Amino acid sequence: MSADEPLVLRQDDGPVATLTLNRPKAYNALSIGLMEAVLEALEAVDKDSGIAVVVLEGAGRGFSGGHDLKELQANPQPAFRERTFKTCSRMMLAITRLRQPVIAKVQGIATAAGCQMVATCDLAIASDSARFGTPGVNIGLFCSTPMVALSRAVSRKQAMEMLLTGELISAEKAVSIGLINRAVPEDALASETKALADVIASKSHKVLKTGKEAFHRQIEMSLEDAYTYTGGVMVDNMSFSDSEEGIAAFIDKRPPLWTHE
Amino acid sequence: MSADEPLVLRQDDGPVATLTLNRPKAYNALSIGLMEAVLEALEAVDKDSGIAVVVLEGAGRGFSGGHDLKELQANPQPAFRERTFKTCSRMMLAITRLRQPVIAKVQGIATAAGCQMVATCDLAIASDSARFGTPGVNIGLFCSTPMVALSRAVSRKQAMEMLLTGELISAEKAVSIGLINRAVPEDALASETKALADVIASKSHKVLKTGKEAFHRQIEMSLEDAYTYTGGVMVDNMSFSDSEEGIAAFIDKRPPLWTHE
Amino acid sequence: MSADEPLVLRQDDGPVATLTLNRPKAYNALSIGLMEAVLEALEAVDKDSGIAVVVLEGAGRGFSGGHDLKELQANPQPAFRERTFKTCSRMMLAITRLRQPVIAKVQGIATAAGCQMVATCDLAIASDSARFGTPGVNIGLFCSTPMVALSRAVSRKQAMEMLLTGELISAEKAVSIGLINRAVPEDALASETKALADVIASKSHKVLKTGKEAFHRQIEMSLEDAYTYTGGVMVDNMSFSDSEEGIAAFIDKRPPLWTHE
Repeated sequence: MSADEPLVLRQDDGPVATLTLNRPKAYNALSIGLMEAVLEALEAVDKDSGIAVVVLEGAGRGFSGGHDLKELQANPQPAFRERTFKTCSRMMLAITRLRQPVIAKVQGIATAAGCQMVATCDLAIASDSARFGTPGVNIGLFCSTPMVALSRAVSRKQAMEMLLTGELISAEKAVSIGLINRAVPEDALASETKALADVIASKSHKVLKTGKEAFHRQIEMSLEDAYTYTGGVMVDNMSFSDSEEGIAAFIDKRPPLWTHE
Repeated sequence: MSADEPLVLRQDDGPVATLTLNRPKAYNALSIGLMEAVLEALEAVDKDSGIAVVVLEGAGRGFSGGHDLKELQANPQPAFRERTFKTCSRMMLAITRLRQPVIAKVQGIATAAGCQMVATCDLAIASDSARFGTPGVNIGLFCSTPMVALSRAVSRKQAMEMLLTGELISAEKAVSIGLINRAVPEDALASETKALADVIASKSHKVLKTGKEAFHRQIEMSLEDAYTYTGGVMVDNMSFSDSEEGIAAFIDKRPPLWTHE
Repeated sequence: MSADEPLVLRQDDGPVATLTLNRPKAYNALSIGLMEAVLEALEAVDKDSGIAVVVLEGAGRGFSGGHDLKELQANPQPAFRERTFKTCSRMMLAITRLRQPVIAKVQGIATAAGCQMVATCDLAIASDSARFGTPGVNIGLFCSTPMVALSRAVSRKQAMEMLLTGELISAEKAVSIGLINRAVPEDALASETKALADVIASKSHKVLKTGKEAFHRQIEMSLEDAYTYTGGVMVDNMSFSDSEEGIAAFIDKRPPLWTHE
């Protein structure tokens, strides 16, 4: 990779922004530089009112192999390690807190912090030859930050098996345990991801953002608090012009015309 | 529907009470009136010591299509909207807090707050042609209150897909993600639901109530608090005469005779 | 069983300790004596730096049928019952808090507190003829402490069905709902369990312990707190000599040599 090549590419197709992790020769290893570039790209998307949905993908043969071990090995100071894991957690939280829904599009492997990104994204679609895992235990570095996302996405026994054995699972298994939404033939991955993104982007963008934020906030609350909070979200949502329009269109049996405001 | 026709029907078959949402021409849309009638019916059942299990069903072609959009459109005052969502959340919490277990019996569609009711019930059984969804996003009103129940019933990725795409899922898929317990042929729905309700109603009613309450309380606690709490519930449960009888009958290899007290 | 026969057997095979519940004639019913013996055995394993993985199994035809009902019936004092459930919860928490991962190896039945043990273990593997259930409701004693582990291992609707009906489920079903990791032919249970234990025991033991503790601590935290906590765990983990060795071995494409320190 030349020094001029950006670490993260962004390509917009109408309201769908695709962010590409761009270190293909390193299986998109999450160096500090790459993670900071992702954070910067997410910040820009968050402020971009024209974007409704984000697709997150990796360039080359795989989605991401996780942290950049060579960089970590070359920088053994505790401060560098601390900065690495803090930046990584900030990046994961930025995906969760991003106003737009994020779809992981996965080919090849998604391992360690790469698997964590898939678990963190709101939705995930993969090539049926893709594989997923948290193999840190194999190199003496347990996937303790990846487990945060993994253990909230799949059942405990399944998460534990991946974490303790370090073995990779197939895309089919990833679907069955709830880590990803679906697996498709490799040559259909681009079109199926686009179709899913387009369906979501056809909704009111303001409503999507309201819903995504509410989802991640309410899931950490008690049942009663979650109802109090989301009840307020619903009342607020009904005052959006897109809600008035959507309900009127539904009753009139015509397609809605969103203003996204 | 004539003004005289009740919004909720109740029919008792021994210890099993069936509550029927009774606005069949409106797909059992959850108007304020219907929700208040459900609350009233649940309050009556809660106090009725003769009832062990509740079946919740919808009259006509579907279980429920969710909120009454025409009523909401006709009453655009914030106070009315607030009352609608507060009443709905009170109804959902009343199902969870009802002393008796509640089985959703689903045919046709269960969408938006209708899907939320299914997610909220303790158990659910559906016709294999039934479909489930949270399509609020299609009309500019994200299913933010339904997501509270949905995201606690199924995995996050599955909940997010339903919420963001607004697409309906089949009964088979609903089983595989854990939203319902089982799907049966349409002509077996009544008999299978009755069989499930009868199995549960054959237990000590006092014990069922103890267990249901404990379930919903402990699931919101930390592991250690949950054990402290349920340990006390067990000691208390062992002092019931039905527990003494049940254990004696088991050891003597004879069927127990419950007093339900 | 003679009075001399220990209630729990321990057999070590290198770094894998197998603990055997040893009341085969009573389906390994969890008497106070047996539970205290398990606690003692776990305490010894916890302190034994030579042990990396624990296999928990039951002698005879089944894993465990749960509490010792005859003992409970013979000791109707509230203090004895309290002691029984407190000891049981202490035993379950001791499995979760044990430094080494625990694999349940299940044949025959695992019911009530026996099913709770399976749900509590980090991993579980079963004979395909094994059956699981929480049938306390059948004897007037709702499985309220078992539900704590069960409802954190499987989806709510599935847990509720087991608890309210008291019916047993097959090993295949237990896999599909996430209660166990896999079901294997009965004659392969020993070899498959050993293979799984050996894979885990081949990792750095210190790293396994770090990861298991982190898993159970972070899962009770909010997302942000979990990241703050596990970020610190990762930085600490990287200072282990086994982490330095593991990363170096990975980069050098050679097998790692663990010191387990």
